Amino acid sequence: MGSEKLFAGIEAGGTKWRVAIGRSPELLADTTIATTDPDSTISACVEFIRNSGIPVEGTGIAAFGPLDLDPNSNTYGFLTTTPKPGWSNTNIKSRIEDSLGVPVVIDIDVGGAALGEWRWGAGRGLDNILYVTVGTGFGGASLREGRTFHELGHPEMGHITVEREKTDTFPGSCPFHRSCLEGMAAGPAISARWGRPGPELSERLEVWDLEARYLAQGMQTYIYTLAPQRIILGGGVMQQPGLLDMVRKRLEERLAGYGPAPSDVDNFIAAPEFGQDAGLIGAIALARRQFEGT
Amino acid sequence: MGSEKLFAGIEAGGTKWRVAIGRSPELLADTTIATTDPDSTISACVEFIRNSGIPVEGTGIAAFGPLDLDPNSNTYGFLTTTPKPGWSNTNIKSRIEDSLGVPVVIDIDVGGAALGEWRWGAGRGLDNILYVTVGTGFGGASLREGRTFHELGHPEMGHITVEREKTDTFPGSCPFHRSCLEGMAAGPAISARWGRPGPELSERLEVWDLEARYLAQGMQTYIYTLAPQRIILGGGVMQQPGLLDMVRKRLEERLAGYGPAPSDVDNFIAAPEFGQDAGLIGAIALARRQFEGT
Repeated sequence: MGSEKLFAGIEAGGTKWRVAIGRSPELLADTTIATTDPDSTISACVEFIRNSGIPVEGTGIAAFGPLDLDPNSNTYGFLTTTPKPGWSNTNIKSRIEDSLGVPVVIDIDVGGAALGEWRWGAGRGLDNILYVTVGTGFGGASLREGRTFHELGHPEMGHITVEREKTDTFPGSCPFHRSCLEGMAAGPAISARWGRPGPELSERLEVWDLEARYLAQGMQTYIYTLAPQRIILGGGVMQQPGLLDMVRKRLEERLAGYGPAPSDVDNFIAAPEFGQDAGLIGAIALARRQFEGT
Repeated sequence: MGSEKLFAGIEAGGTKWRVAIGRSPELLADTTIATTDPDSTISACVEFIRNSGIPVEGTGIAAFGPLDLDPNSNTYGFLTTTPKPGWSNTNIKSRIEDSLGVPVVIDIDVGGAALGEWRWGAGRGLDNILYVTVGTGFGGASLREGRTFHELGHPEMGHITVEREKTDTFPGSCPFHRSCLEGMAAGPAISARWGRPGPELSERLEVWDLEARYLAQGMQTYIYTLAPQRIILGGGVMQQPGLLDMVRKRLEERLAGYGPAPSDVDNFIAAPEFGQDAGLIGAIALARRQFEGT
């Protein structure tokens, strides 16, 4: 490692914060902290970095949202109105900056994960990728030459329009749009539709066939809108064995060979190489890009 | 004007080519040529530019597609497999370059129109805009800092998923996806659903109410996917009086205040300032950017 600079990475989630030190996917130290109130969580995180005894040049945060990511805003780097109790209007960026005494860069969690996969994982070498995560929520980040774009706030890719599948009578679980993609296909929708959580439905083919149909609808829309060279599709729901292949198959049917269609759907729809670590490694990538330019 | 460079712009469409000379929306000369076979159409276009006696430094083309826009491809600048008789595999870019003896830059028609609106029209000063045109076809171009992205071919924004509106029994007119947005809401879908073309349905409120609902579905998806600062919504179908306002209203209902939602929908969904000239003026903008860097 020699004199190469080191960075802290934080994946700040609603249930846990993961913290690591390094400059690549090979982490030198890492830990997990339960998300409680802002004071305790931020302190524990800062203490871990300090106590490691490793000097870091900067910190990257891939955080749950909604975040204010407008650099011209007075509340830049703040969590805004989150339903998470106690966390609304928390200035995550400045509080960590002030406690640690090193500069902090912050992005939305999926933006960090997308960057990590682009820099070192399933998206490397590509100019235009889409990272999608399907779990408790449904998120996506489009990277063009490694950059996300947040002009009107970060995209909310889970909330796109889908068509109800013929056999499906589930009304949808999105409190805003009811039957948008997130409302029909994220983890809570699966639980609500079938009466139990996804992992307990693993053997029921009809659950995953329907899930794959909705996900393929979403992928069609993303492809025709963003024309990515690859879609990296991860998150808890995608842990279901065989689901990724079912999505590929349904997607190929839907595209019908039209437009900027991927020639090799197996390669086009990929799992994240860093799996559940994508956000944490992405936070390191955020810091390295911001503070080292590499 | 003095010694300022001048450029030719061509909007190459399936029914007509429009040609102009200038360096801004104030055109010095312009004409319209019916699209016949490639030889005649291209010759007429080159002749007009030559006969104008105005020396041009380069030519921008905003062309109908599908186009090969991969600079590394052997068929870069070609129309590929178009249903337009005689035009498949026409090397538009090189043929005009060779005849005129000046360099040519080519982009998809909506890409040119988007650039013109961004440079001088309804999108000026914004970092992230979406230009959408609803007419015989349904097209869109997303500009980030004035650039389109074509890594997997240009996007086909009309072919996104929409949900069938409750009262609508029309099966959809897209030969590939049947009931995608284009299949439900472009000009041919309106004609097929109601038995006559849009302009003859001008007084029938239910036609435009349904149209606005589908367009609002599409705008929702674009907003959540691309987070543009403004959507410029033009094309022949949008000439229907009142339709733009109906789309705004339906969109506001659909977004339900969630996500990167525009604070002022009247300002957010805008008509193109150059109306039906957006493509032609965009072609001048393409040339000026490419060959003058401004």
